[in-house]
Amino acid sequence: MPDNFVVTPWRVEGEIDYDRLTEQFGTTKLTDELLDRLRKIAGEDHFMLRRRIFFSHRDLNMILDSHESGKGFFLYTGRGPSGHTHIGHLIPWVFAKWLQDRFGANMYFQLTDDEKFYSQNNMTLDETRGFAYENALDFVALGFDPAKTSIVIDTEDISTLYPLAAQVAKKLNFSNMKAVFGFTNETNIGMIFYTSLQSAPCFLEDKPVLIPLGVDQDPHFRLTRDVAPKLGRPKPALLHNIMVPALGGPGGKMSGSSGGAIYTTDDPGTVKKKINKYAFSGGKADVEEHRKLGGDPEVDVSYQYLRIFFEPDDARLRKIHDEYRSGSLLTGELKGILIEKINTFLARHQEARERAKDRMGEFRLAKN
Amino acid sequence: MPDNFVVTPWRVEGEIDYDRLTEQFGTTKLTDELLDRLRKIAGEDHFMLRRRIFFSHRDLNMILDSHESGKGFFLYTGRGPSGHTHIGHLIPWVFAKWLQDRFGANMYFQLTDDEKFYSQNNMTLDETRGFAYENALDFVALGFDPAKTSIVIDTEDISTLYPLAAQVAKKLNFSNMKAVFGFTNETNIGMIFYTSLQSAPCFLEDKPVLIPLGVDQDPHFRLTRDVAPKLGRPKPALLHNIMVPALGGPGGKMSGSSGGAIYTTDDPGTVKKKINKYAFSGGKADVEEHRKLGGDPEVDVSYQYLRIFFEPDDARLRKIHDEYRSGSLLTGELKGILIEKINTFLARHQEARERAKDRMGEFRLAKN
Repeated sequence: MPDNFVVTPWRVEGEIDYDRLTEQFGTTKLTDELLDRLRKIAGEDHFMLRRRIFFSHRDLNMILDSHESGKGFFLYTGRGPSGHTHIGHLIPWVFAKWLQDRFGANMYFQLTDDEKFYSQNNMTLDETRGFAYENALDFVALGFDPAKTSIVIDTEDISTLYPLAAQVAKKLNFSNMKAVFGFTNETNIGMIFYTSLQSAPCFLEDKPVLIPLGVDQDPHFRLTRDVAPKLGRPKPALLHNIMVPALGGPGGKMSGSSGGAIYTTDDPGTVKKKINKYAFSGGKADVEEHRKLGGDPEVDVSYQYLRIFFEPDDARLRKIHDEYRSGSLLTGELKGILIEKINTFLARHQEARERAKDRMGEFRLAKN
Repeated sequence: MPDNFVVTPWRVEGEIDYDRLTEQFGTTKLTDELLDRLRKIAGEDHFMLRRRIFFSHRDLNMILDSHESGKGFFLYTGRGPSGHTHIGHLIPWVFAKWLQDRFGANMYFQLTDDEKFYSQNNMTLDETRGFAYENALDFVALGFDPAKTSIVIDTEDISTLYPLAAQVAKKLNFSNMKAVFGFTNETNIGMIFYTSLQSAPCFLEDKPVLIPLGVDQDPHFRLTRDVAPKLGRPKPALLHNIMVPALGGPGGKMSGSSGGAIYTTDDPGTVKKKINKYAFSGGKADVEEHRKLGGDPEVDVSYQYLRIFFEPDDARLRKIHDEYRSGSLLTGELKGILIEKINTFLARHQEARERAKDRMGEFRLAKN
């Protein structure tokens, strides 16, 4: 039976079966044993690991080995700046911040303004570069250590990236790109070349790199991993997070282009309206039935947002889960909890985002 | 009947029929009328035009129109730094220098270290970049005006080139590259992308550009010309020179990789040895027969080098031609004339090349 979902860097559709995706992509599911090892070394757990928001990896053991050997590792993740940041984008960034804190690792954050220019028919390079700056503010607002963190904007830091990208590009051919991305003869040559630029930051330091990222980005690094040994470099290690569901419910990921995303720049009223109006409910048709039969937290988008991001406390999340399941918590009440959580987060985030405007210089790659 | 020659940016083989090539490529042969117009505007002629060393063009009239309208134009040519400069490379550079002098035009000289890295299996980027510097010395030695001339090294000036290249790359697809270059699924993605970087300097100024270049480079700019109107920019105009024949005779072009090239760094003894030993002769098997039947200057490499580069004086060239044709000038004597000419040129050139080592900074694009 063919899978009824699609996950590529440019398209996520259907209800994703993450077990099947793990098989399809050839990644490895995170085991309790590996997470035990990570927790012991980090000194604490992270709810995104416990809850398998990060559910899969490549070579995480190698990264922990490198850390324990004293060689260490560095972190890298990124964002394709096709619009404002929404809360789905923050998952790997927040997690990377935790990794930086626990491991003292250097961090590179790549903004792929060129990629979004190549992939979006209707966007100019000035527009994608403008969003790169907007997205960078959200990244800085999360509290990364400027002494250990560099923001890389493709078109502006190309002099650092291109010589590294060239090494990768020489080892990849059009067959490779067709096989991994389904490119055709009509694909533009910017897109064809682009993976080599997304690979470049993997080679910025002479250490292994760990990349926390949405699983849709895995195909780029599958290619990087094939090339790395040919360049005498370690393969990049990956930690994959699930796609944050769209407000409208299961199927696809939260996306500006498909509508219904919560942006980091939304004001409290907007958040309230979006959640109340659009957040897909796992509840029953009316209150009476809901009280009797209970709701389904597995498909309820508000519950999922709490699980994925906004309620780190397991006991409180469990309570919400059980009450919704039993029917004692109504959909409107559940939405109210989420709205409160999001707006509390955004109030602080938006303040930090304002302060970030004066601090961008501290985070530019060129400072190195 | 299939043509028994091949001309691409990476391969020149067989005895080129330039009339057929002009048809194949869809370029326009230079007419006496157009050269009259050019001469009137420039105030003088150039032997490379009179002798049709530059034999074909695209849109040269448009460039002259732009000059006469006061808008002007700028110049651009380049070099793929896969080895030391040989005298074949100097043709478009020397001619560009004349154009700069006559028209006061700005000049950009691109060194495509990335392209040669992508196209040569056995070269590293450090090696091609090293040759880029070596080749740049020869360029500077020709006497360009530093106030009007910029040297562009792809990997070092990529921050200027890449945003322009991206505009081109978005408008070209793999079909285009296959059609023009015969690329296959096994072609590396650096090569596939590369044409967009060779196109980029065409858009460095808000004026039309004129590119004097070896005709083997035409295919890149055929693509650039297709894209330019889509970017709202004028099509680059081209002036094509013939390929300088290899020392070993007709068929192919002078090339370091196929052996038998005269390098700008050769000492007088080396030049003498190479010409005497390798320069293909149009003479007869022995002196007696040569005196009786005469030689064939059309296939004689020494005569051709004089015609193409080393004897700008038409009357003297005609005398050499006629005497060789008649048999009164022997092959050894003809070679002696060429050796003398080359070594006189190189003595001056090598001095200027030494001085250029301290002057490179004046010519870097970054100065702008």
